[in-house]
Amino acid sequence: MQNELTTPLLDQIAAPADLRRFKESELRQVADELRADLIDAVSKTGGHLGAGLGVVELTVALHYVFDTPDDRLIWDVGHQAYPHKILTGRREKMRTVRQEGGLSGFAKRTESEYDPFGAGHSSASISAGLGMAVARDLAGGTNNVVAVIGDGAMSAGMAYEAMNNAGALDARLIVILNDNDMSIAPPTGAMSAYLARLVSGKTYRTLRNRAKSLSQHLPDFMREGARKTEEYTRGFFTGGTLFEELGFYYVGPIDGHDLDHLLPVLKNVRDAQTGPILVHVVTRKGKGYAPAEDSDDKYHGVSKFDVITGAQAKSKGNAPSYTSVFAETLIQEAREDDRIVAVHAAMPDGTGLDKFGAVFPARTFDVGIAEQHAVTFCAGLASEGYKPFAAIYSTFLQRAYDQIVHDVAIQKLPVRFAIDRAGYVGADGPTHAGAFDTGFLCPLPGMVVMAAADEAELRHMVRTATLYDEGPISFRYPRGNGTGVDMPERGAALAIGKGRIVKEGTKVAILSFGSRLADSLAAAEELDTFGLSTTVADARFAKPLDSDLIARLARDHEVLILVEEGASGGFATQVLQHLAVRGLLDHGLKVRPLTMPDRFVDHAAPEAMVKSAALDLKGIVDAVFRALGAGAERVLKA
Amino acid sequence: MQNELTTPLLDQIAAPADLRRFKESELRQVADELRADLIDAVSKTGGHLGAGLGVVELTVALHYVFDTPDDRLIWDVGHQAYPHKILTGRREKMRTVRQEGGLSGFAKRTESEYDPFGAGHSSASISAGLGMAVARDLAGGTNNVVAVIGDGAMSAGMAYEAMNNAGALDARLIVILNDNDMSIAPPTGAMSAYLARLVSGKTYRTLRNRAKSLSQHLPDFMREGARKTEEYTRGFFTGGTLFEELGFYYVGPIDGHDLDHLLPVLKNVRDAQTGPILVHVVTRKGKGYAPAEDSDDKYHGVSKFDVITGAQAKSKGNAPSYTSVFAETLIQEAREDDRIVAVHAAMPDGTGLDKFGAVFPARTFDVGIAEQHAVTFCAGLASEGYKPFAAIYSTFLQRAYDQIVHDVAIQKLPVRFAIDRAGYVGADGPTHAGAFDTGFLCPLPGMVVMAAADEAELRHMVRTATLYDEGPISFRYPRGNGTGVDMPERGAALAIGKGRIVKEGTKVAILSFGSRLADSLAAAEELDTFGLSTTVADARFAKPLDSDLIARLARDHEVLILVEEGASGGFATQVLQHLAVRGLLDHGLKVRPLTMPDRFVDHAAPEAMVKSAALDLKGIVDAVFRALGAGAERVLKA
Repeated sequence: MQNELTTPLLDQIAAPADLRRFKESELRQVADELRADLIDAVSKTGGHLGAGLGVVELTVALHYVFDTPDDRLIWDVGHQAYPHKILTGRREKMRTVRQEGGLSGFAKRTESEYDPFGAGHSSASISAGLGMAVARDLAGGTNNVVAVIGDGAMSAGMAYEAMNNAGALDARLIVILNDNDMSIAPPTGAMSAYLARLVSGKTYRTLRNRAKSLSQHLPDFMREGARKTEEYTRGFFTGGTLFEELGFYYVGPIDGHDLDHLLPVLKNVRDAQTGPILVHVVTRKGKGYAPAEDSDDKYHGVSKFDVITGAQAKSKGNAPSYTSVFAETLIQEAREDDRIVAVHAAMPDGTGLDKFGAVFPARTFDVGIAEQHAVTFCAGLASEGYKPFAAIYSTFLQRAYDQIVHDVAIQKLPVRFAIDRAGYVGADGPTHAGAFDTGFLCPLPGMVVMAAADEAELRHMVRTATLYDEGPISFRYPRGNGTGVDMPERGAALAIGKGRIVKEGTKVAILSFGSRLADSLAAAEELDTFGLSTTVADARFAKPLDSDLIARLARDHEVLILVEEGASGGFATQVLQHLAVRGLLDHGLKVRPLTMPDRFVDHAAPEAMVKSAALDLKGIVDAVFRALGAGAERVLKA
Repeated sequence: MQNELTTPLLDQIAAPADLRRFKESELRQVADELRADLIDAVSKTGGHLGAGLGVVELTVALHYVFDTPDDRLIWDVGHQAYPHKILTGRREKMRTVRQEGGLSGFAKRTESEYDPFGAGHSSASISAGLGMAVARDLAGGTNNVVAVIGDGAMSAGMAYEAMNNAGALDARLIVILNDNDMSIAPPTGAMSAYLARLVSGKTYRTLRNRAKSLSQHLPDFMREGARKTEEYTRGFFTGGTLFEELGFYYVGPIDGHDLDHLLPVLKNVRDAQTGPILVHVVTRKGKGYAPAEDSDDKYHGVSKFDVITGAQAKSKGNAPSYTSVFAETLIQEAREDDRIVAVHAAMPDGTGLDKFGAVFPARTFDVGIAEQHAVTFCAGLASEGYKPFAAIYSTFLQRAYDQIVHDVAIQKLPVRFAIDRAGYVGADGPTHAGAFDTGFLCPLPGMVVMAAADEAELRHMVRTATLYDEGPISFRYPRGNGTGVDMPERGAALAIGKGRIVKEGTKVAILSFGSRLADSLAAAEELDTFGLSTTVADARFAKPLDSDLIARLARDHEVLILVEEGASGGFATQVLQHLAVRGLLDHGLKVRPLTMPDRFVDHAAPEAMVKSAALDLKGIVDAVFRALGAGAERVLKA
């Protein structure tokens, strides 16, 4: 297919204005070319494919009907924005997507005027769109605001909050519900079942069966004006009561791959000049590419692949992923303790809990994209003596901060937080970096905060969390594969608030929290070669801190380096506070915190991001020499 | 009324089991006595009255029908839990409510076995209840779980997330929707309008009109079993489609003050043994006490008052409240800048935005109890060039953390965060303390973080935030009245990232962030009398920090005290990080951070809480002497 890729129409589209010069009858071919181009591009780069394939026709129709960028088009999450990027001047750059210096994998304001609002997390688009719609009305503008949101994203409370507000404000806002019955995993939740009932409704099925004949008549029929629109949307299609009760005008469900349906409906809602409208569009994730359609995850996120066979490049690395170590260890523990239950927010694969769920289906809960609920649901389980593990990525745990404070920590309920993707996450970039968790958890009284230095440590921490029943406890671990250490058969319970010395030295001490331990050790060995005898310790706990260990490191060394793969305000600052309160800084200690820099780091390979943050071997060594001053720096350069 | 208060039935109730020994026909009198007792108690202590008055009959009915504490009864928020406390063994202690060492104003797990889940923030009860219901099912239990939630709380996404999950799990859970059409303020939002439509439905009105005759027949009719229940709930009452689409069995609306309606319905849902049920109960906030019913806020939270007249004790203090200074200053600014808009989450009075809304109704947005949406809605407004002020209490801003990170900070959108109730809040206790905001905001790249030392500073900060357009900016200010400083006519724009020296000294430096400045100054004057010449500076900014000021304080003084009314991990740790990175600690500096202690502080007077945290004058002076060592401490004791 690569060799045959000819795209005569797409080649004429440098911007949506070019698209709008085509006849409607040509758009089918534009869509076909766009789909082929998308497959070709992602086959070379890897990235998110399935979601984009599902919205090819929708993307073409939206840019054809609406006057972007004056009309605001907001893609929720942004997984599905690749076809949009191709049509909005970024076609050539698609071969750089998710690579260092290249296009973001999501919508991004700084990337294009056609991206009025960026995203990476789901369910924010209606809120943002409502803000834009209200701004337009305040300014007396007339442009349209269109937010495209998936059915999975509709399980998030934030989307409901926005609909509830939009319905009350009666603002002119168009929400396209892209119902592919599948965001990353098949969605769960009552809303999803409701949408399925709408789609399975008799008239929708009838309509699909008669699609060909209907499509010849619909446009004329619909041009007859508002009264006919009313008939069409209320009478011809079914259901939508739930949305109507929330103050939305509901249109649908319509076939999102049939341009003859999409175009007249979108024109109508554009011209309706009414309050909020929800257009329920049914699409198929992975549409038009057989390997994607046949795949369980519909090629949600893929590596580079062969277009003909669909075979994806294998990722390298022999050590097990942290995610799988977490899942396997939790299964081990759960075999012996039937009070262990596992909760995730629409991320069965990402968290590894698909494996847990295969063994313990009745003890595994996918609550939907609903982190707030997930955490308080866990608090409820814990209040009844269960041992809930809430497996939520660091970045998504931000959605549940109040629930952690208010429902878990204040009540000292033993909820276990398994914080995956802690630290830099590579190609997903700043929206998904796990930067802030240690900082927002440590201030909470009674919280125990751990980080795993390697996959064996992670196993110990799962065990520790299983046994710890006095209050909330968390453990963070990075994306990707472990370091390849020997794995213990079973985890061992760690002493709460105790770190460990990994290497003894005399002049320099490096205290690492989590993933930077290996580089800390390598740095220590390099420092030793300069005659700088270096101690390395693994803190294990950011809370409670190991007073004895910290006092010993501070007292017996000239330099103390604190290192963590997290934003400033986390582990290192907790240690500094600890040292200051105890007067351990009074007599002069060259203490240096190494954290993520105070900027959002764009996507790149994780190692490149760590290097750019100076959290790698070189960054640690440099920090020691800078702390020791000019004389020592000369040694380094020699 | 105080003198006439005789409660012969209530006097026999030490626990709900006693209540259940009464005949149904006696419950009306129990409720009347309970209401009188509640009014009497709150008249002497102040506290939340209106919500409790509205649920007197519901509370009696719930404890009568359900077997608490084995059946779990969860009160959302807890404003309305006073009658529940009276019936569950805490009647005598009600005279201590919200006072130091006394009962909490909310439900609290450590207070009673009848409080299976605490709350203070709204909308968490369905999640917690679902957790308990699932735990019960896993354990093979048979008890009931009942969550009572207000209609206002239904605007929160968290409640929707929980319903969506409960509907999918089909768990046996009873949700009582306490629809008083008024939580703290009249609710806004499409859900609220939907509930109003249900209540105004024809059959509900008919039912109310026929209440007397119906009530004689209902119990028999309903005892005929499940099929009849079906008829009753589906046929007799109307509507509820929205909840049914979410997988709930809907019953209602029913009159929440009529025990003849409540008791049979609650018995039926108790015995139904089906999936999730929502019982829509209509109540009147303030019910049965004329001064409350006639009041705009239905006596939501009151001072001590005279039972006969309803007159509330006046609060003392001549200085204006911070809240009013914020509101008046924002009005000033908005008169000159029509891009200023104000957004709050169902807190018009609490935030002062009721005043703003009176002047600029079209530029004021109450989005409901929906902090997540509020912040991203602001981001949308900012993306179109408006200047949104999100006025949200510190504790509630925790609900929007991800939106601050993801939708505001990463996109550098100039949303202004007006953070009221920062620091200790007194009687509301730990669920409402503003402890963590500085800590969770400072790590965010590009965020500007301010705190007002007094009401004049607050005016300057509102002005500063108005003019600052480069990214997000926040300012925190405490609950209560200002310090009484002279107020400038207009605010002046502060230099971003610059603090100010308030008093010059030589040996000791106190660097204060926010509300502790006055005590810092008083402490400095006391230290001066011991010959310890003390500098006092107001940091104004926790981010960006004032490098020059900090370097000068560190270089020129022997002791540096950092003080803030916030949890560890905030301002002080940012300064420590700053000092360490720059090597300013290398030569020995007696730096001491003074923050809130690492525990949740129970409710008390705000001054008592500050004192208990050692953040007052004495705490600051003591910290200086401790830093200076044994010799100095002897001086102090002399």
